[in-house]
Amino acid sequence: MDLLSALSLGELALSFSRVPLFPVFDLSYFIVSILYLKYEPGAVELSQRHPMASWLCAMLHCFGSYILADLLLGEPLIDYFSNNSSILLASAVWYLIFFCPLDLFYKCVCFLPVKLIFVAMKEVVRVRKIAVGIHHAHHHYHHGWFIMIATGWVKGSGVALMSNFEQLLRGVWKPETNEILHMSFPTKASLYGAILFTLQQTRWLPVSKASLVFTFTVFMVSCKVFLTATHSHSSPFDVLEGYLCPVLFRPVWGGNQHDNHGRPHGGSGPSSPHSALSTKPKEELSEGSRKKKTKKAD
Amino acid sequence: MDLLSALSLGELALSFSRVPLFPVFDLSYFIVSILYLKYEPGAVELSQRHPMASWLCAMLHCFGSYILADLLLGEPLIDYFSNNSSILLASAVWYLIFFCPLDLFYKCVCFLPVKLIFVAMKEVVRVRKIAVGIHHAHHHYHHGWFIMIATGWVKGSGVALMSNFEQLLRGVWKPETNEILHMSFPTKASLYGAILFTLQQTRWLPVSKASLVFTFTVFMVSCKVFLTATHSHSSPFDVLEGYLCPVLFRPVWGGNQHDNHGRPHGGSGPSSPHSALSTKPKEELSEGSRKKKTKKAD
Amino acid sequence: MDLLSALSLGELALSFSRVPLFPVFDLSYFIVSILYLKYEPGAVELSQRHPMASWLCAMLHCFGSYILADLLLGEPLIDYFSNNSSILLASAVWYLIFFCPLDLFYKCVCFLPVKLIFVAMKEVVRVRKIAVGIHHAHHHYHHGWFIMIATGWVKGSGVALMSNFEQLLRGVWKPETNEILHMSFPTKASLYGAILFTLQQTRWLPVSKASLVFTFTVFMVSCKVFLTATHSHSSPFDVLEGYLCPVLFRPVWGGNQHDNHGRPHGGSGPSSPHSALSTKPKEELSEGSRKKKTKKAD
Repeated sequence: MDLLSALSLGELALSFSRVPLFPVFDLSYFIVSILYLKYEPGAVELSQRHPMASWLCAMLHCFGSYILADLLLGEPLIDYFSNNSSILLASAVWYLIFFCPLDLFYKCVCFLPVKLIFVAMKEVVRVRKIAVGIHHAHHHYHHGWFIMIATGWVKGSGVALMSNFEQLLRGVWKPETNEILHMSFPTKASLYGAILFTLQQTRWLPVSKASLVFTFTVFMVSCKVFLTATHSHSSPFDVLEGYLCPVLFRPVWGGNQHDNHGRPHGGSGPSSPHSALSTKPKEELSEGSRKKKTKKAD
Repeated sequence: MDLLSALSLGELALSFSRVPLFPVFDLSYFIVSILYLKYEPGAVELSQRHPMASWLCAMLHCFGSYILADLLLGEPLIDYFSNNSSILLASAVWYLIFFCPLDLFYKCVCFLPVKLIFVAMKEVVRVRKIAVGIHHAHHHYHHGWFIMIATGWVKGSGVALMSNFEQLLRGVWKPETNEILHMSFPTKASLYGAILFTLQQTRWLPVSKASLVFTFTVFMVSCKVFLTATHSHSSPFDVLEGYLCPVLFRPVWGGNQHDNHGRPHGGSGPSSPHSALSTKPKEELSEGSRKKKTKKAD
Repeated sequence: MDLLSALSLGELALSFSRVPLFPVFDLSYFIVSILYLKYEPGAVELSQRHPMASWLCAMLHCFGSYILADLLLGEPLIDYFSNNSSILLASAVWYLIFFCPLDLFYKCVCFLPVKLIFVAMKEVVRVRKIAVGIHHAHHHYHHGWFIMIATGWVKGSGVALMSNFEQLLRGVWKPETNEILHMSFPTKASLYGAILFTLQQTRWLPVSKASLVFTFTVFMVSCKVFLTATHSHSSPFDVLEGYLCPVLFRPVWGGNQHDNHGRPHGGSGPSSPHSALSTKPKEELSEGSRKKKTKKAD
C-alpha cells in the first residue's frame, strides 16, 4: 500500500474504479464474446439456418455470468434481461458480426491491434464483475467464504462454465470434456481472483478494493493481451501449478490402487507422477481442441 | 377494435375470458399432452417397466411450462405441484391412457373427431397460459420486454423447450437436435403470440387483452385443428419466414467465410442462399424425426 | 404407539431425536459418500489430474441433497455452502481418502467392521434429512403433498438423482440409464420414507415424529448394514413390488400396441407380462453396472 500511495497509484485506482462500464466497456465485452462464438465450428452456418439458436447462444456468451450467478444465489435466471439497452446492444453486435454486408464489421474488429484493445477492455469488465459478484454474495452471506468465491468465479468465467449446455443449444455434445476438467487461463484467473477479492472483502487482505481491482486488472489485461497477441495457449500459472500440484495431489504410491480401471502406472517415485501430471493432459488434447477450449472462456 | 365492437365480438371475447379452465379445459390439455407422450418411441414399454419415470415424464408434459417459467422467474420449481387436484387429475389421465383395460380410454381419445375437440381445447389453455405468464412477468419487471416475451414463450411451449432433458429421463439422448434448432408450429406460434401479448401489455398494441386472447385463440385453434386433421407438419409461418429470413439473415457474400468448417457454397448471389436456407433443413430431417418433432411441442 | 410406550421405546426415540448430527454423524456421511465416489471407475485418476473437478464431485456427493432441495424450493443453490465447517470437514475427508500417504485413511475406513459402522451412521443422517426436508416443505406449502414427498425424496437420495450431471462433471456420459430408471435401494427407501413422513406431518399417520424417525432409522440401518455386509444388490422391496407392479402397471392385452417399436410380445395372459416385467430389467443390467448403480445412491 505504501508503495502504491508513494507512486500516487492509490488515487489512480480510485478514479479508475469510478469509470462507468456502460456502454463502451460493455460493448467491447460483447464484441469479444460474440467474436469467440463466431470462431466455433459451425457457428456461421448456424446463424444463417437457425438465427434464433445463434442469438440465444450469443446472449449466453454475453450474459452467461449473470445467469449462473443468479442461479447460484436463487435469483430469477433472466433477471439481467431487464436491462433492455444491454440486450439490444449485444443483439446489435451479434447481428453486425454475423450478417454485416461484406463482413465489414467482423473484419474490422478482427484486425489485431483493434482486437487487442477490445480484449483489454473485456478484462476490465471481467475484473469489475468478479468484484461486484463477491460484494453481492457478501451482502447475503457475511461469512459465506465458499459462496463468495463461487459467485466471483462464475461472474468472471461466464459462459465457459456452462459450455456443455451452450454447445447443446447448437446441437453439439462433447461430454468427455468441460471447462472444469480443462480450465483455460481466464477461468483459472477468475478463480484465483475470486479468492483474492474474497480475502479483501473479509478484510484478510489489507488493501483497498479500488487498489486490488486496479492491480488485478493490470495483471489480467497484460496477460490476456500478451496471450492473444502471441496466439499462445499457455498460462502464467502453469509453472506454479507444476510445482504445487504434484506435491499436494500426488498419486498414492506403495498402496494398491482401488481404481477399477486397473490402469498401469510404471512410476515408482515422486518424480514420475509429476511428469505424468504435467504432460499427459497436454498430449491428449489435440491442437484444435485446445485452441477452442481457450477461446471458449474468453 | 371498432370492427370487433360492431360485430359484438368484444362482448363475446369478454365472456370467453371468464370461462374457467379447470377442470374441463385442463383435462383436455392433460389428455392431449400425455397422448403425445404415448406416441414417443418406447414410451409404452417405459410405462410398464419404469412406471415412476413414465409418470414423471407425464408430469413434465403437463406442467413443464410452469416449471420452466418458475425457473426463469426464480420461483420454486415445484410451486405448481401444490395444486393437488391438478396433479391428481393429470395422474389419472396418465394411468388411463397407459393402463386402461383393453386400451379403451386411449382408443376413445384417439378417435379423430374426439381428438380434434381436445386439441382445440388444449390451444385455449395454451393461449391463456401465455397471457397469464406475460401478466405475471410484467408484475415483476414493468419494463422487462425480453423477460415478458421469454416468460410467455416458455408458458406457451412447455415441455418442448426442455425436450432434451425430458428424453434423458426416459434414457434417450439426441443432442444433435432440439426445439430451438427445429421449432415446431406451437413453439413458433407461442413466440409470436408472446410478442403480441407483450405489446398489448405495454400498451403498444391498442386492443383489449380479452379481444387479443380471443383472436389469438381462434387463430391457434383453427391452425392446430387443421394441421392435426390433415396430419400436416407445415406451418402457416413458413411463407412469411421464407421471405424474411433470407433478407435478414443472409449469408455474407464476397467475404471470406471464417467458419472453420470450410463448407462449400457454390451460390454467388442472394437467391442461392435463399434456397439453401429454405430447403436444406427439410432435406436433413427424415420424415420420422419431423413427425416426432412436431408432436413433441403439442 | 401403545406398544412403543410399553417398551419405553417412545422415550428412547425422543432422546435419539435430540442427538446432534454434527460432527460425528456428518463425518460418517461424508466418509461413506466420498468412499463411493472413489469406487467409481476413473475417480482416482481424476483426483490426480483434475483435483478441482474431483473436489466438486465430492461436494456434490456430500451436499447434493441440499442443492437439489434448494433448487426445488427456489432457494439459493449454494445456500448450504455457507456452513464453512461442514465444507471444510468434507474437503478434509476428500483429501484424506484420495491423497493420504500410503492410502492409510482409505484402508482404515474400508475395513469392513469400520465401514459398517459408518454406513449405519450415514443412514441415521439420511432419515433425519428426510424428516427435516418434509418439515421444511410443509412450512412453505401446508397442503402441498407432492411437494413434501418430492422434497423428502431428494433430501434422502441426494446425488443419486443427479448422477447424470455428476458424471458429466467427470467427463463421463451415460444417457441410457439414470437413477429414476433403475432405482437403487436407498433411493426407493427414501421415496417410501418420504411418503411415510408426509403422512405423519399431515397427521394421517397417528405416531409422533420422533417414533417414526427412530423406527425408520432402525429399518434403514439394518437393511443397509445387511446389504453392505453381504455385498448384496437386492432390495427388501423387491417381493412387494413383484406382486404390486404387474397388477397396477400391467401391459394392455387384447389391444393393438401403439408403441412405435413394434416390439414382439408373445404373452397371451396376465401371467406372462408379470414375468417379463420382473426378469427383463435384471437380465439387461450387467453385474458391473448393477454394482455401480447401487453404490451411486449410497
